[in-house]
Formats: sequence, C-alpha cells, structure tokens
Amino acid sequence: MTERMIIVGGDAAGMSAGSQARRLRGPDELEIVAFERGHFTSYSACGIPYWISGLVDSPDDLIARDPETFRRKHAIDARVRHEVTAIDLDRREVVARALDDGGREVRERFDTLMYAAGAVPIVPPWEQDDVAGVFGVQTLDDGTALRAWLESEPRPRQAVVVGGGYIGVEMAEALIRRGLSVTLVERAPQPMSTVDPDMGAMVRDALCGLGIDVRTGVSVTGIAERDGRVRAVGTDAGELPADVVVLGLGVRPNTGLAAEAGLPIGVTGGIRTDLRMRVVGLPGPEDDPGTAGIWAAGDCVETVHRVTGQPVHIPLGTHANKQGRVAGINIGGGYATFPGVVGTAVTKVCDLEVARTGLRERDAAQAGYAYVTATIESNNRAGYFPGAAPMTVKLIAEQRTGLLLGAQIVGRSEAAKRIDTLAVALWNRMTVADMTALDLGYAPPYAPVWDPVLVAARKATDAVHGGRA
Amino acid sequence: MTERMIIVGGDAAGMSAGSQARRLRGPDELEIVAFERGHFTSYSACGIPYWISGLVDSPDDLIARDPETFRRKHAIDARVRHEVTAIDLDRREVVARALDDGGREVRERFDTLMYAAGAVPIVPPWEQDDVAGVFGVQTLDDGTALRAWLESEPRPRQAVVVGGGYIGVEMAEALIRRGLSVTLVERAPQPMSTVDPDMGAMVRDALCGLGIDVRTGVSVTGIAERDGRVRAVGTDAGELPADVVVLGLGVRPNTGLAAEAGLPIGVTGGIRTDLRMRVVGLPGPEDDPGTAGIWAAGDCVETVHRVTGQPVHIPLGTHANKQGRVAGINIGGGYATFPGVVGTAVTKVCDLEVARTGLRERDAAQAGYAYVTATIESNNRAGYFPGAAPMTVKLIAEQRTGLLLGAQIVGRSEAAKRIDTLAVALWNRMTVADMTALDLGYAPPYAPVWDPVLVAARKATDAVHGGRA
Repeated sequence: MTERMIIVGGDAAGMSAGSQARRLRGPDELEIVAFERGHFTSYSACGIPYWISGLVDSPDDLIARDPETFRRKHAIDARVRHEVTAIDLDRREVVARALDDGGREVRERFDTLMYAAGAVPIVPPWEQDDVAGVFGVQTLDDGTALRAWLESEPRPRQAVVVGGGYIGVEMAEALIRRGLSVTLVERAPQPMSTVDPDMGAMVRDALCGLGIDVRTGVSVTGIAERDGRVRAVGTDAGELPADVVVLGLGVRPNTGLAAEAGLPIGVTGGIRTDLRMRVVGLPGPEDDPGTAGIWAAGDCVETVHRVTGQPVHIPLGTHANKQGRVAGINIGGGYATFPGVVGTAVTKVCDLEVARTGLRERDAAQAGYAYVTATIESNNRAGYFPGAAPMTVKLIAEQRTGLLLGAQIVGRSEAAKRIDTLAVALWNRMTVADMTALDLGYAPPYAPVWDPVLVAARKATDAVHGGRA
Repeated sequence: MTERMIIVGGDAAGMSAGSQARRLRGPDELEIVAFERGHFTSYSACGIPYWISGLVDSPDDLIARDPETFRRKHAIDARVRHEVTAIDLDRREVVARALDDGGREVRERFDTLMYAAGAVPIVPPWEQDDVAGVFGVQTLDDGTALRAWLESEPRPRQAVVVGGGYIGVEMAEALIRRGLSVTLVERAPQPMSTVDPDMGAMVRDALCGLGIDVRTGVSVTGIAERDGRVRAVGTDAGELPADVVVLGLGVRPNTGLAAEAGLPIGVTGGIRTDLRMRVVGLPGPEDDPGTAGIWAAGDCVETVHRVTGQPVHIPLGTHANKQGRVAGINIGGGYATFPGVVGTAVTKVCDLEVARTGLRERDAAQAGYAYVTATIESNNRAGYFPGAAPMTVKLIAEQRTGLLLGAQIVGRSEAAKRIDTLAVALWNRMTVADMTALDLGYAPPYAPVWDPVLVAARKATDAVHGGRA
C-alpha cells in the first residue's frame, strides 16, 4: 500500500519537507497531502513590509510556489483554505475543515505526519479584535488586509506601530514611505532589542532621521475606537491618535493542535524534536507505530542554541526552510540533521544595516558567562575608495578563554552580511585571538586591509589578554 | 642599554611590526630604526590601479602613515630612500646607502632584526630595461612613473598589459577607463588563473565587454622599440603595437640580502619562520645570540596553507599586515601567532566581483585529493527585491569526507565578500554537509532565504552523498 504523508501547514517548513520527501520517493511510494489554512503556500512573509511600502510590486512576487505548482511538479496535493482542527495519533488521522466549502469536514489517514503549523502573533492583554484598522503582519492574508485598509477611504494618515522589533521597524519604515505619519511604540529603552541598547540607539537615530516618532519606555494599554474604527492607541504616557495600527509584538509557536494530540512541548513553548526533526518524547516505546512517523519543523518547534546549549524558540524563515528540508530528507529515507542555531539575524532599517549573532550582553550574563566586550568603528571599503562608509562592530567574548559569544554590526552599506563571517566563527567555537588571523578577502573595493571583523577581533583580544596578544 | 630594533623595508609588514613593538615597549626600552628604499612608508600598493584609473584622486590617499607620523607618533626613526645593502648577523649590523645623499654608507647595530623587504617583480627573460614606456606597478614609485608617462607627450594611446592575474586585469581596466586602447596578453587559456577556467571565462567576458582585447594562450617574446621608446610587444602570435606596456607577471620574495646573510630560504623561495614570525633554521643552538632576535614578515616569507599543510608564498597586503603585527607583538614581549592562510583573495573586474579561497581544482588534484565540485547560480538578494543580481558559487569538496577544499564566487554585486563565510568554514575544516546548516543572516535585502553559500553547500552535499543527505 502507498504510504501517506500529511503536512499540517503549507508554508516554508511544511512544503520544504514535502518537496524533499518527494524528491527521494515517487508518488507510487508516497502520497503527500498538505493542509494550509490561508490562501497561499510557500511565500516570503519577510517580504510583506516591502510589498506594503511599494518596493515590491505584487504579493505574487512573494510566492515561491503556488498550490498548482506543487500539484503539477511535485505531485503534492496542496489544499489551501483547509484548517486542521484535530490530530488523532491513535487512529493516525488528521481532521480538517474546508473553509471555502462551508466548513465541510475532511478526514485523512496518515503514516507520516509533518507538523508545521508555524507561529501565531502574541496577543496583547488589551487587544480588541472587533476594532477595524488594527493589523498583524504575520501572513500574506494579513498583508492583503492591511494594504486594502491603507487604500480604502477615508484614507488612513496616522499610523501607530506597536513593538520595535524587526517587523515593527520594518513596518514603521514601510508606512512612512507610503506617506503616513508614523509613531513607533516600544516598551524597552531602545528599539530593536535584539541588539544591545548601545547598538539599538543607532537604530533609533535612523528611525528618527526618517521622521518616525519613536516612543520608547512606553507601554500600550489599549485601543480606542470610534464607530468600530480605531481612533487612537492608549499608552501609559498618554493617547496616540491613529487611524491604522500595526501590531509587531512577536509570535509564539502555534502548538494548540499539537498539544491536544499529545505532542511534547518544550520549555520555550515549541515542540521538541531530535536532530533529524522527529518529534521526541512521545509516549510508548521507540518502535511503537503510534509514536513513529511524527515530525515537526519551522516556527512551531524549539531548537538548540549552540552557544549556550539551551533550548530556544527563534521563528525565522531561514530556520524553517532548513528544518523542513532536513525532515523531508529523513522522511524520504535519506539522512540529514539540523544541529541548532547561533541566533543570526539581519535587517535593514532605513539606510541602516543591522545584524547580530550569538549572545547579547544580557544573554551572556544570564547564561552565567563572565565576558568582555569590544566595539570598533571601521569602514566597509578602503578609506580612500569611493563609497567607503562607516560601520560599528561589537564583539562579546568569554573573559577567561576569549571564546566568541556574540557579535553585532550596525553600518550604512556592505555591513550586515559580514555577520556571516562571525556566525561561522561562533558556530566553530573560535576564540577572538584565533579570529585575528582569519584569512578574509581583501581588496580596496571590499574592505580596508584590516577588515572590520578583524579589527574587532583584535580589540576583543586586547580586552581578554590585556593588550599583549 | 637601550635595545635596538632595525627594520628592513618600511611598508606593511615592517611598519606594523614596528608599531606593535612600540605599543608594548617605550622609546627608553627599545629604539626602532626603519630603512625603506622608496619614497614612501606604509602605503596601499593594492590601491595603485585605482589611482591610475582616476577613481582615487591622489597617491597621498594611498599612504596610511608617512615617515613624519612614524617619527612623531611612534618614535620610529623611519628613513626613506635608504637601501639596505648588507646584513651582518655576526657583527649584528645592517649596512645601508642613503640614496639621496650620494649613496653615503650608514651602519646600524641591532639587537632585533625585522626583515620585511617584500617582493620584487618576476623579471621575464625578454625584459629590456632600457626601453622607455615599460612599467611594473609594484610600488608607489612605479605608479608615479606610469602616471607621468601616461600624461606625457606624445600621449600614449595603445596599452599592452602582460599577465592576466589580479594586477593585470585591474591595470587593464584602469587603462581603458583612462581612454587608452588596451590589449591583455595571458599565457594561460583564461585570464585570472587564480580561479578555475570555468570561472575565469566569466572574467574574460567581463573584460571583453569593457572593450579590452583579451589574448589568451599567447606568450610574450620581447619588446620592440623605436628611438628608445616602446613600439610594440612581440608575441608568439604576432606583434602587438604599444606605446605603453604594463607588466603584471607576479612577484617573488625579495630575499637576496637575507640569503646572503644566511637566513634560511624555503622551497617556495620565501624565508622560513615559526608561528611567531621568528626566522627558523639559523645555524647555531637556539639560545645562540647570533640566531636570536631575527624576525621576518610579509611578502618575503613563506607561510603554511592550512588546507594542504604545504608551504606557500602568497604575497598579499592583508597577510603582510597580520604577520607584521604578530612579529611586533612578540618582539614587544607579548604573544601572538600567525597560523597560516587558506588562500582567500577577492578582486573587482569591471562590474564583476571575483573571489576565491582554498584550493582550485588543479590544486586539489595536485595535493592528491579525490574531489567533487558543485556550481550553482543564485542571487545576492531575495529574487523579488530591487537590486537582485545573479552570482555563481563553486565549491570543491573531498569526495569521501565532504570536507570543503575550496570555493570560488563570481557575481555582479554583494558577491565577493561572501567568500569570507566560506573561508572561515574552510579554516575550521567543515564538511559541506555541516555547512548546509550554517546560521547565516537572512532578510530580503541581503539574501534569498537560502543564501547562495547554502545552496552551493547543498549541491556539494548531494555530489558527495548521492542526493540522500
């Protein structure tokens, strides 16, 4: 009998898993059905701010593969607008509702379950679902709704973005580029708290330079409405008028169905898997068919931070794609592992490039490290080469050993992707002293003779060894 | 008595060593004298093509620190236009000629000798020194002479560049940008033989696209003159008219004085040092004062290739600076090592970015590796993001283990510095399978969700493991 694989969630992780499994096993060996609640499969949620701003023309540009392509090219039965409502591990069945067919119930048997339900926005205590003009931007459907609102009459003019993380700053910039007045509200002392406050201060300056009204240290208390439409955002520092509100408060793993089905949830709230993305800790012996064949990947799982060894939940498309690929290869009978993350992330804020990897100062302290920091300013290119622009690089290293613990970069140009060099150094547990010798590319159009990464490694080495190494 | 450090060669390696030694030991402890044959100290030879092209305004822009700065800020007695003529290890003396003072002989005693005489151009069998209009571009003095010739009457219009390596292609571009007709002659089948021929073919296309006449597989046989001025370059495929000729045939370690003094020369022609840049293998026991205190760094030394473990001579400013720093820290009483190179290099050819690290195919074969290759095309940014441009990434990996052996990148934008990610992976002896999991920065302005480096690692992993990992 043909084996059946059911995918719950038709975005990056789920569809990567399906594609890889299909690559290794043909349709006569393995049948694949994917359920997706929304209208779209495999799209770049990270691209939504650029569609809102108009930098990207059409939402179609953000879609990597549509259901028809999956059906035709990968023999995957991708069913959008199908919401999975239950997973029955004993009967090995998934129950779904066909949203565009009056909620008709569909039951599908599986041998292999790929749980990839993603993440859901964190709901603030004060959210009021019934107020028009308040949006998340987690899915392409969210983006579509926001675009429609921005283009409707009366035309919104005053935006408040709640939350100063990646999505918050990207959306603030997108909205001001559309000509709205924008206020960004963030509880922390600086926006972009994914970097240390000293680096976040540069992000704040860039946002302000663009004309965004940045309110930090401010907590939102509620949404004020008039005739069912948003009128203002209430904060502990007064009311901020708004005719459109974007919520960027982060996300949490979407594990409701998984938990109900008995899949083990870790301390971060994400599903626990092994290196091959197989769900671990299910009741029953290893070879019990009731526990075999259950896989999870993407924003709904937790993974390991390779620096601290602790479980973390870091919902990023790049991890979801990798984890989905790994799961799919293993489901297909191959061998692949996802050995964890080091916390790399990059973003563009106005003309500022912001990047991080590893631990921030607060993470290092929390993990119990005694650490030193080194912050340097240097250029992306040789100082005399046209287009030379400054960047700031900050390293955090263990005090006694000089082991690299984390790095952050803020710069104007050709800055952010230098974090990859540091991420690979971190991945391989290099010391900052070892890093001073790294053989990085040098030519005047690309770097000063000492790349900023090397300059930072030198200063960090001085901090560890007192200037004599 | 104050110790004396004599530096032979006042460019990157020598002056880095002097600065670092000074940082750790004050003038009352250590006296430092540097001899430099040319007019300048510590300049960017790599920037010369950009000064010739006019992209950089003035040769002053290329000078990091002049002799006056060394004297004032670092208490280093930097003497330009002083040519060292002999090193006497027994008497621990250096003999120099003051070129601007009638060749007056200067003798200086040393406790510590820093040999940093750099490299000298490879002299072809056919070179005719007495023909005007034939130039190397190794020193800033060379660059000055070439600029003067280009601006003299009768104004040169027809350039031939001999040698298609980094300096050759950069000079070809610089000269065509100045409005000259340019022919590039290279003996190998493709220009830029520092990358594999398949990648070199893209460089050829870029050069041709700029209007440069690229003649590969052609050997130069001589220089033809008229009235003492160059008239043409003779080749085994006919004569090429020229009123200016630039030689870019590479360099060899400048070790004449060192060899005469008895410093050991390695198989590559470079001076042999230990990890701390101390010259090794001098006659006499370890603690013999005749053998202690002799250091070397920069283009005159050989180093270790970390992939093959073999000695190599790779004359690059970035290595010279690092080695000089390491020597200086050790001379100053600190501790630092230079653990070798992985062969990273980047260059810009027209609007093409070219990068390499590790072994080319021919190097891998020569070292005895059974290897696989994987070449992919991807984008610098998310495909839908404005400014997305293609790049080609090629990986070479050991067949049995998947160990990364080398990498090459050719692209249009934001391509070359991705080699750093691969260089650090290579440095840490990663396998291509491990590399597929690397946590690299992702955001639409900087990369597709699978960075080109990861796409290449996936394809290389398929090549090693037959698509099942």
